[in-house]
Amino acid sequence: MEYKITVMKNAFYAQSGGVTSVINCSAYGVISKFKKDFSESNIYASKNGIVGLLEGELYDLSETKKPLHNLLDMPGGIFGSCRYKLPSLDDETFYKNLFVQLEKINIGYFFYNGGNDSADTCLKVAKAAEKYGFDLKAIAVPKTIDNDLAVTDNCPGFGSVAKYVAISAKEASLDIKSMCKTSTKVFVLEVMGRHAGWIAAAGELANNNEQTFVHKILLPEISFDEERFLRGVEQDVSEYGYSVIIASEGLKNKNGELYASSKEKDSFGHSQLGGLAPKIASLITDKLNLKNHWSVADYLQRSARHISSLTDIKQAVAVGEAAVKLAAEGKSGVMPIIKRISNSPYEWVISEGDLNQIANKEKTLPKNFISNDGFGITEAGRNYLLPLIEGESFPKFSNGTPLYEGLDLHLQKI
Amino acid sequence: MEYKITVMKNAFYAQSGGVTSVINCSAYGVISKFKKDFSESNIYASKNGIVGLLEGELYDLSETKKPLHNLLDMPGGIFGSCRYKLPSLDDETFYKNLFVQLEKINIGYFFYNGGNDSADTCLKVAKAAEKYGFDLKAIAVPKTIDNDLAVTDNCPGFGSVAKYVAISAKEASLDIKSMCKTSTKVFVLEVMGRHAGWIAAAGELANNNEQTFVHKILLPEISFDEERFLRGVEQDVSEYGYSVIIASEGLKNKNGELYASSKEKDSFGHSQLGGLAPKIASLITDKLNLKNHWSVADYLQRSARHISSLTDIKQAVAVGEAAVKLAAEGKSGVMPIIKRISNSPYEWVISEGDLNQIANKEKTLPKNFISNDGFGITEAGRNYLLPLIEGESFPKFSNGTPLYEGLDLHLQKI
Repeated sequence: MEYKITVMKNAFYAQSGGVTSVINCSAYGVISKFKKDFSESNIYASKNGIVGLLEGELYDLSETKKPLHNLLDMPGGIFGSCRYKLPSLDDETFYKNLFVQLEKINIGYFFYNGGNDSADTCLKVAKAAEKYGFDLKAIAVPKTIDNDLAVTDNCPGFGSVAKYVAISAKEASLDIKSMCKTSTKVFVLEVMGRHAGWIAAAGELANNNEQTFVHKILLPEISFDEERFLRGVEQDVSEYGYSVIIASEGLKNKNGELYASSKEKDSFGHSQLGGLAPKIASLITDKLNLKNHWSVADYLQRSARHISSLTDIKQAVAVGEAAVKLAAEGKSGVMPIIKRISNSPYEWVISEGDLNQIANKEKTLPKNFISNDGFGITEAGRNYLLPLIEGESFPKFSNGTPLYEGLDLHLQKI
Repeated sequence: MEYKITVMKNAFYAQSGGVTSVINCSAYGVISKFKKDFSESNIYASKNGIVGLLEGELYDLSETKKPLHNLLDMPGGIFGSCRYKLPSLDDETFYKNLFVQLEKINIGYFFYNGGNDSADTCLKVAKAAEKYGFDLKAIAVPKTIDNDLAVTDNCPGFGSVAKYVAISAKEASLDIKSMCKTSTKVFVLEVMGRHAGWIAAAGELANNNEQTFVHKILLPEISFDEERFLRGVEQDVSEYGYSVIIASEGLKNKNGELYASSKEKDSFGHSQLGGLAPKIASLITDKLNLKNHWSVADYLQRSARHISSLTDIKQAVAVGEAAVKLAAEGKSGVMPIIKRISNSPYEWVISEGDLNQIANKEKTLPKNFISNDGFGITEAGRNYLLPLIEGESFPKFSNGTPLYEGLDLHLQKI
């Protein structure tokens, strides 16, 4: 053991924000490591993120009978997640109430598993504990499919969605290639990413030296030029017979507005029906008269545990374990981060980040990852992305679908 | 060997209509069996379905060096497919030209791999051969994700898309379950199926005795009643906290018209942007004010070889092999069909179907497979569907995505 435990405090763990296919792997990392290193303490998981704590609904993990490693094989957030913004530190009533809740079950360690907003939550809890004199180590555990957290080289959750996008793009491309002579010539796949194009960029990983499966990538970082795009698609169709486009939902026009805004109403005053993919497909129909198909991956991309990246799973577990180590070292207001040592062979270590430099910050795609024409990913981008999707770890199947057994959860009202 | 080869004729193989993740498995079945049983003959694959034959572009498979079993691991149609309707039998010029093309490379066996329309093509070729006195055995090889071919118990291609839908629905459901307390409460996944609800029905396979992952299935066989549907969704949200809906693109209103017609124009006169899923999502927003997300699987569902059903792969190979056997027996105008012997354990054999009873016919979901409320699948339906998605056969991966090596193809102009 690398450190000595002096106070027998319990731990609190919660999942927050949009979930991923490997957030439960981080839960496994935190819980298994805490149970091992703090064997005389207990760990509680909050139902639906911080909301469970506020409403007094927790899962007592000492009562769970099913094997913890079931968590490694289960997408979504097993304890439930939330979108909930904490008030400013001045709200003494709120934070004192929060600490009353934590004190009821003798919590000394607060693990909060999420993205930018959740880092903000965790930092506020850490600062409030200091301000209001509550003995608590608050550690954030990184998670986001968006890969947009500052300081860390990459984020658990991203590698798996990147793998999903690369595989789906490659497969759909083979389909269109078969049909393009007499049928569909353009395919648009819409993927997530409101502000950063990391997920769309992963479409490039479908390609290799021998074959181009993805022809255009539309990033939120590059304002959308319809004319240049349409000329490019025509060029693809003339060169390859077809064009496959991966489009980030956050694509913006020249004025920095979302190209496909969901705020629009149709002529009947109903909410706008379409998303980005149908809008681009419609543009191609109207301007190029090319038969096209489109797909919107939405939640499918971030829940596809059946095809999660093994690298991602390992890193999700590692940041969970490291969070416990940081807590035991007496740290607070910090987050384990991933540091890349080398691309090939891919080597990485876990280090420590300060939440002040992480909370509410957003890391977009670096310029040198984007090709000159703005529709592709450079070799540098590819070298960064590729290791993150490496390896497979298929879940157990039963009756043709993954088993996803989960855990038996025992609710405790406090 | 079960039969004796008397005439050393060559074979022609073509892929037709929308492709599947296992159509190349049927190609493997036809080609490997023909090479084995007709070892002194050659087999040619047509580029882009029947179009390649008409335009004189064929692949000479005797020149292919890569192992044939690469076909087992490759989605899409490796030789290219087409949508092409043959003229009536009276068009003597067309058919005589077709036979001239076939004669150039001494074709005596014509294998046509496709769905309803392709069965029609194959039947026309068989009848034309008889009418115009050309010595040709024309055999259809069944393939369609839609599972709507008559006579056969099920169709190769369907089991894999059913598996994709069941897995995707289960995974997305776990995601929404995590988030529903403070965020998304309804999820709509649009799947293929213009006229028959087989693919949407597979959403039921996400469910099991212990847990409901899919709450509503919208079938083209049942006219869509908005009010009853909305009340059902409210009921799901109140009972489970969320509702997951699998919607068939062919959903129809009371007048039998497509509920989401792509012929509509928006207020700017542009083509309609959305599909069915965004239309239903919009209905839920407008009438129930419940936060929702939607996904359109489109080509992703039918190209997802990474998660194909092993049962489906085996049957796709088996119908291909059986087609060669039928040809060798001197049959023409027929198709190998799958006959189910029992549900549990699942047992099946290959039998023979008459193309007159298959071409242009469509098999929709039987009434007894649809629950009384019209939004679910009965035990009988489940018992039928379940064996078709059983088993996995993951492809080889390299650099994080399936390798999909394919074959080296050698074009021969005739």
